[in-house]
Parts: sequence; structure tokens; C-alpha cells
Amino acid sequence: MAGLRVAITGASGRMGGELVDAATDRDDVAFVLAASRTPEVVPSGDAPGAADAVVADADLGAALRDREIDVLVDFTVPESSVDYLEAAADAGVAVVVGTTGYGEDGRATLDAVAERVPLLKASNFSRGVAALRRAVRATVPALDGYDVEVTETHHNGKLDAPSGTALTILDDVEGARGDDADRVHGREGEQPRTGDEIGVHARRAGDIAGEHEILLAGNNEVLELTHRAGSRSIFAAGALDAAAWLAGRDPGRYDFDAVLEPDGEDRADEGNPR
Amino acid sequence: MAGLRVAITGASGRMGGELVDAATDRDDVAFVLAASRTPEVVPSGDAPGAADAVVADADLGAALRDREIDVLVDFTVPESSVDYLEAAADAGVAVVVGTTGYGEDGRATLDAVAERVPLLKASNFSRGVAALRRAVRATVPALDGYDVEVTETHHNGKLDAPSGTALTILDDVEGARGDDADRVHGREGEQPRTGDEIGVHARRAGDIAGEHEILLAGNNEVLELTHRAGSRSIFAAGALDAAAWLAGRDPGRYDFDAVLEPDGEDRADEGNPR
Amino acid sequence: MAGLRVAITGASGRMGGELVDAATDRDDVAFVLAASRTPEVVPSGDAPGAADAVVADADLGAALRDREIDVLVDFTVPESSVDYLEAAADAGVAVVVGTTGYGEDGRATLDAVAERVPLLKASNFSRGVAALRRAVRATVPALDGYDVEVTETHHNGKLDAPSGTALTILDDVEGARGDDADRVHGREGEQPRTGDEIGVHARRAGDIAGEHEILLAGNNEVLELTHRAGSRSIFAAGALDAAAWLAGRDPGRYDFDAVLEPDGEDRADEGNPR
Amino acid sequence: MAGLRVAITGASGRMGGELVDAATDRDDVAFVLAASRTPEVVPSGDAPGAADAVVADADLGAALRDREIDVLVDFTVPESSVDYLEAAADAGVAVVVGTTGYGEDGRATLDAVAERVPLLKASNFSRGVAALRRAVRATVPALDGYDVEVTETHHNGKLDAPSGTALTILDDVEGARGDDADRVHGREGEQPRTGDEIGVHARRAGDIAGEHEILLAGNNEVLELTHRAGSRSIFAAGALDAAAWLAGRDPGRYDFDAVLEPDGEDRADEGNPR
Repeated sequence: MAGLRVAITGASGRMGGELVDAATDRDDVAFVLAASRTPEVVPSGDAPGAADAVVADADLGAALRDREIDVLVDFTVPESSVDYLEAAADAGVAVVVGTTGYGEDGRATLDAVAERVPLLKASNFSRGVAALRRAVRATVPALDGYDVEVTETHHNGKLDAPSGTALTILDDVEGARGDDADRVHGREGEQPRTGDEIGVHARRAGDIAGEHEILLAGNNEVLELTHRAGSRSIFAAGALDAAAWLAGRDPGRYDFDAVLEPDGEDRADEGNPR
Repeated sequence: MAGLRVAITGASGRMGGELVDAATDRDDVAFVLAASRTPEVVPSGDAPGAADAVVADADLGAALRDREIDVLVDFTVPESSVDYLEAAADAGVAVVVGTTGYGEDGRATLDAVAERVPLLKASNFSRGVAALRRAVRATVPALDGYDVEVTETHHNGKLDAPSGTALTILDDVEGARGDDADRVHGREGEQPRTGDEIGVHARRAGDIAGEHEILLAGNNEVLELTHRAGSRSIFAAGALDAAAWLAGRDPGRYDFDAVLEPDGEDRADEGNPR
Repeated sequence: MAGLRVAITGASGRMGGELVDAATDRDDVAFVLAASRTPEVVPSGDAPGAADAVVADADLGAALRDREIDVLVDFTVPESSVDYLEAAADAGVAVVVGTTGYGEDGRATLDAVAERVPLLKASNFSRGVAALRRAVRATVPALDGYDVEVTETHHNGKLDAPSGTALTILDDVEGARGDDADRVHGREGEQPRTGDEIGVHARRAGDIAGEHEILLAGNNEVLELTHRAGSRSIFAAGALDAAAWLAGRDPGRYDFDAVLEPDGEDRADEGNPR
Repeated sequence: MAGLRVAITGASGRMGGELVDAATDRDDVAFVLAASRTPEVVPSGDAPGAADAVVADADLGAALRDREIDVLVDFTVPESSVDYLEAAADAGVAVVVGTTGYGEDGRATLDAVAERVPLLKASNFSRGVAALRRAVRATVPALDGYDVEVTETHHNGKLDAPSGTALTILDDVEGARGDDADRVHGREGEQPRTGDEIGVHARRAGDIAGEHEILLAGNNEVLELTHRAGSRSIFAAGALDAAAWLAGRDPGRYDFDAVLEPDGEDRADEGNPR
């Protein structure tokens, strides 16, 4: 889709800045609108990595219309995110959501927005992680009775544990097993393992961009499914892939998994609105 | 299925011996017939690990009938295997085939046998390897354009390289990508990599029972799918699982993958005769 | 050393039984004395895996003398271990100690015993683990400022966490860094990592015999040192290697590391009494 | 060392460019001289990443003197490298050499240069790889009789195989074992493994910056030593660390390993001229 017109919120933040950078670099993006609480610090103009236009948050709604934006990409925090998404819905603009941690109200807003515009939300925009999740869903049911342990490794500056992606994978495992597991975070002392327990291990070290491993063990054998991100830039790239894929679709909720389909085709069971 | 009656060929060989051992140990097996070129060296009777009866190869056909055998399990070599399988077909006995390396004639025999009795053939009878193959089929199509490298590691006594399982996985990758790859075994010197090449690496060291890893890399990220066998006994166990699953089915060809289905149910696309 | 005469305590337990099995199998062992609280359940005589003689715990001291035992191998619990070791010291018999978890009194007994006979104590009798520990001591000082995380993986029946070997490795890391670390077992919720923290992760799954991994990360690179035990039999084998090495030495404390030296030679800095 | 003055050759090439970038970024570097066959394409001046001065190769010798350069860093090709190094020796400037593949004449030049100025040459300037090599030297002698396999993985654009670092590690293994091994590159077909063989496996995939793994297996256990580079920038950073460490030392040959010593102290056996 040559000519995609993208808006990026939180443009003065780390991830917002990466998204602006990545968007200005892509051949399939024609226009980049940056929105920020502090628009004065966001570079705009002709310099490399600079947005085509920058607006204050308060002016986002008008700018989405005036600039004929196709997709808004939001990696911010739940509190401000809900305002951005409502502005997008009012303007009929599709939304790609990388923000995590919504409470009940936030989740209700997401549902309402998805009735008006196409909405694609993911905790991780890497193609490889989406493939990893497919591998989890393909193997867990085939290894009934095997123990599962999930280990994630991130740079030492990551504050929360486990990662949002690990939580998503744990949901996948539980969905595939058909029951809720007892999630055990770290083991110390005498601690017998029960069959319906899943160990969750959060390692923090160095500059590691992000690693997730699912260990399945039983019957004297082991299956390990591991994803390693080479750099954090893959997430911005995936979010913009998602934006290109989402523009022009019908209102509804979409999964990042659908973006991976060969030729960008929908799959009846996952890519369609649901 | 309490009461399964099993015949095992090549019972004086290493794998045949392991199969007899494993079969006599199982609660769901009622009778174990061992066949061998050298029946005098195969223990029978009440000792642990001893078959209930032992016959010379020449007497296999009659014994299959007289002993009311349900399934014959064959891990031998193609030359003798074809005779065993034909004897089983004549006696209406299902066959589980772990023998590999059949030529054109051998493959024709397998096809003919499968028209008369149920036949389940696999290059690897581990549940984990079957799950690994599912993971390969689930992820390769989602990571279009990523490079694939297959690494297998076995004990230093394994003569052939790459392993039969690695070859099966390579077929899976090619099937998922929809084209034949250029399989490169080891790289030395100046050797630019082409996009349709798959690297194949056979490591041999110590007592390693068997390890297979599929590496997919692209877009600055990596997905690794790894299986490790804890001991060679898992293959005998899986073959007997397959025997229990196969007994009483309609004639035709079956995949080991079907044995993994929850509740032993067929899957329309894989488990049914084809 | 052809003709080694070995006593094994706790012979009716799992590890004691494995030691008896392994000892009767070795060419360099001439006589195996088994001691047990329940001597009536320990097989003795000519059968494979049976000890040459079995005695009740109360008769151990006399038997050590009468049977001219060279080395006593003890993998039991601290409470009974101290009695066995004192009996060995009284009889002038060297001791290999795999028991762990001694309190202050137990440690005092060990010190006293080591003044009278050669004593080799280790938390892990695998050559590979000893090599792993060498790798830790060789690399940690060279990677000053890198974060360290230790992950261990064992079968789902292991009750305590982390493993004794992981604790030994943590001591090695702290020794190499020259300070005590803050050992963090599992992370959940908002939990910033400090520089002097070491993450410790205990995974429990399937039948895994034992895996230990040390992750060092910093400066945008990662070093991983990993040991995997193929089966628990390696620990019995290593303990008997240690017994063969220890017999005939001077009283004092010895490290398992010294057993690994080429040609079984001492190293001045580690293998000599200290 | 605030105030280091550095010259970088091949500044219009990929690695030369990265070195200039990294050098201009460092607080301990006061001046960056870039030399190139095509000086007109190398940015100089005040822009970020631009050298303080750029000269043509022919003018390098004079510039080294005029600009009072402390260390020349050379990652080029053997043919031109020898000229740069001789110019440095003539000017009394220390040299850090990352160029590889010298023939006999080139090696003789290196020896002659090292008699006149301090010279530090390495095939890999990562601290982690230096630590990995220490781990190899610490463990291989302790695991006598274990099989060794070396696997390296790099991006799909790397032409030569195996990597220079893998070759260095193979030398380390052979040095530690005290004999030359039979290096086997890839295995295909019937290929029994001999005890004095080392398998070497070069994987090429995606954007992987560089991974090296040494597998040691025997006695039913496995030790894996693995290094992963997060990005190629670590090599430029390490080369400049080496430059800062080398400036002001006596003429002679130095190892990168010495740069890793705590407090930058020499070790008598490695860091001193030899």
C-alpha cells in the first residue's frame, strides 16, 4: 500500500520515537503525523527521522481528519491511550494498539472503539513471536501430560516481570490445555511440583532485547521453543506492517497473527473480525 | 487396550531387543512373540524382559496366525523387512514400521501391504519429535523469507548423517515452503548463501541420544525449535503406543502424528487412511 | 587401582543402590560392602548388582576393619552420615561424601574426620559440572560488570530448590566477583534489577536428570555456560572415580576438581590437603 | 586515558566506518584521524560520526606524526594493511590489528612491526569471546576423551566459513588437548566419527551478528559454551578498548585477553611483550 498515512502517539517517548523513525524510513508510508504532550521536542520537517507534522495531544482529533490519516499507531499508557483511540474512532481512523495494562474501563473502551473502526491489538508485534505462539498452540495439545515452564530474558532495565509476551504465551498454553494453570514465579525451598503448575521465570541481564522460551518435558524427552529478538526495532517494524495490513478493513478486532498469512490473506478463523 | 498381542522382528538386534523389553513391561500388552534369524539367542519364558515365545524368521507367518497376533512391529533392514511385512499382510496382522531406507521395490511392497492391513510407518516414534514437526509446519509458512538451518546431534557411534528424522524435517520444511531447497551439508571456504538453501549440520559427540534443532532467522530475530531425546528407550515406547493405537483399524496408511491426538481420535486430514 | 575395596552406606536407598550397582560393575573394584538400616532388603551374593556383603548400620565399624575396606562412600542424610564418617575415621578408612545439608555440628564432624583420614566432599560428582565450575571461575572475573543469572532444571520429583549444585555455582560466582550477591529467586511484578543481584531460577519438568546454565550478559553480548546430565548414573560413576583417586592419600580435605587432573595428578593449589 | 588520539584505516569501508563512529562517540578519545583510498567519501568535521581529519592513504605516514596519533586501528585487508602498519612503525605509533588472513610475508611484517611498536592483534575483539576462549582452555583439559564439536552461526551475507573466531577456538581446543585434530566440515552419508576428530559447523541465517558454541560430550553428559554477539558494534568497541589499553606500552606483541584483566593490569604470562 504505497501512500499509507500514519499517526503516531507518544512521539516524544522511546517507543513513539522509534515508530516515527521507522515510519519515515518506509517506502509504503506517505505521511507521518506525530502527536505528543510535548510536541515542541519532536523533530519535524525534512531531516531524517523527522515527522511530516507534529501536533499537541489536544489537537490530535482535528489533525487526523485534516491530514487524512489512515491508521493511528499507539504505544503509550492506558490512561492517555483511551483518549487517543476515541479520537481515532471519531475520525474513522483504524488503530494499531501496542499499549498494555488496560483496566476494566480501558478494555471496555477498546471494545467500543472496535465496533466503529478496525482495531488490531497485540502485546508483541514480532513476526517471530507470532510464529512462536503458533508453535505453542500446535504442540501443547500433542504433548498431553508434559510439564511446561516458561522462561523469558530481557535487559536489566526492564521493570515489570514477567513480560507481557510471556503472559500472552501462558494464556496460549492454558487455552491449549483447556484449563487454568497454577503459575509459579520462582521456586525456593522445599516446593514439590504439581502437574497443573506452570513455572514462570523472568531473567534480567545486560542488553538482551527479548527472549522467550517454552520448555515442554515428559516421557524422557524435551521440546524447547525459543524466540530471540535481535533488537527492539523489530517491534516498530511489525507494528507498521500491521498498520499497512489493517488500513481499509472493516471495523472489528484483528489479531497480529493474521498479518503473517501468506499474501496478507485473512484466515477465516483468526483474521476476520470477531 | 488390555490384551494386545505383539510380534517383534529382529529380536536379537539392539532395537528389537529394546522393543521386546519394553513390550513385556507394558500392562496393555498380553503376549509378546519374538522373531529372529537367530532365535536361540533371544530369551523367552518368565524372566524379566523375555518374550513369551520366540520363533525363527521362517516360522513367522504361521506363528502370527497361531498366536493370534494383533500387530507386528518391525525395526530391521529393508531387505528382510519386506518378507516380514508380507507375512503380516497374509496373516491379516497390522504393522508398525520403523525400518528406514527402502528402495523403490520396498516402497511398492509397503503400498501393497497397506492395501491389505493397517500400516503405520515413521522415521521417528517420539511424541516430542511429532510435536516438533507440527511446530515446523505451523511456523515455516508464517516466516516467509526467513533462512532455515537444521542441526542434529547424536552419539559418536551413529554412522549415517544426517539422521532419518532430520531428513523428514527437511521434507516438512520444503513442503511448508512449497518448493525444494538446496540442502547444503557443512560449509567450508568461500560459500555465499542463497535464499533457497537449507543448511544441514550433523554433530556427533558422546552418548547423546538424539537432538534436532530447526533455526529460522530473518528480520533481526530468531526462532529455534529444539527436541532432545533423554534416552533411546523413548522410540520403543512410542512404537508400542503406535501398535496399541493401530490394532483393529481399517487397512490403509497411518501417520504417527495421529497417535498424538487427544483421546486417540483420528484427525480427518492426517489420521485416516490415505 | 585394581582391587579397590569399597563400603557404601544407605544401600537400601535410591542413590545407595545406584552406587552398589555401579561399584559391582567396575573392573577396578574388588569388594563391595553395603551398609543399611534395613540390611535384609539389600541383595548380596553373586547376582548382578548385588553387594559382596551386607551389614546393619550398627555393625559398620567392625566390618570396615574386618573387610579391609579402602574407601567409604556416603550419600545419605546428615544425621546418620556423621556416625558413618566417625566409624570410618576410627577404622582409618578414607571417605567420599555426597551427603549435603550439614548443620554446624555436622560440619565440625567433617573437619575432625578430615584430620584423621582423607575426605573428599562434593555437592556434585559429575566431571562435566566440575568443568563447568572451572569455566565459571575462568570467565566471571574477565566480564566485570556483566549481569549473572543462574538457571537450573530438574525432573518434576525434585523437592528442593535451587539445587545444591546451583548453590555451589553461586558461591563460585560470588568468590570470583569478590563480594556477596543479592540472590533473587523468581521475579514477579515491578522489580528493578540492581547490579549486585544474581537471579536464580529453578525449573522443574519431566524426567530431566539435571541441567545448570550460567548466563553472563553485558556490553550487548551474552555468554552461556551450560551443563546437561544425560542420566543420574553419572553421579555414582563420578563418586567411584573419586573413591579410586582418594584411596591411599594422606589425611586432609580434597576437592572433586582434583580428580579431573590429567593422569590423576594433584594440583598444588587445589588437590592437596588444605 | 582522556585524550587518546586515534587513526583508523579503511575509513570508507563498513568496519572502518563503524570504528570512526564509535571513536568519535567515546569520551576517552580526543582526536580521530581517518585514512582511506577514497578520502573524499569520508565525512569530517563537526557532524556526529565525522572524523576530525581525513587523509588519503598516501599521506597517512605524515599525518600520523603531524597529528600526534597514539594508536592506529586497522581492520582492512592484508595487502594494504602491511603498508599502514609499516607507516605506523615508522612514526612510532602503536597498532591494533583486526585484519585477518595474512600470508607468510604479512606475518613477517607483523613480527617486524612488533619489534618497533606495541602491537595487539586479535581475530575477535569481543570481551565475551575472550572469556569464551578462557572457558575453552579451562575445560577441555578437564574433560579428557570427550568429543568436541564447534558450531558457529552468522548472518547470511558472511562469505567465508568457518569464521576466523571459530578457527581461533579450534586452535585453542587443539592446544589444550596437546594434539592436532582432524577437522570435519559437515557430515553426509556413512561417516564414522573418530576420537581425534572435531566437527566444525558453519550456519548462515538472517541477521545473526555472530554466535559460537563449543559442545563437549562424553560419559553421558554435555557441556556447552556459547557466546552470542548482540550486534557488530561490540567489535569496534572492543578494538577501541584495546587501543586505550595499548597506548604508551613497550614495543612487543600483546593479546586481547590481557585487556580483560581487572584494572587493566598485565598478567605476567599473557599481557607482557613476548
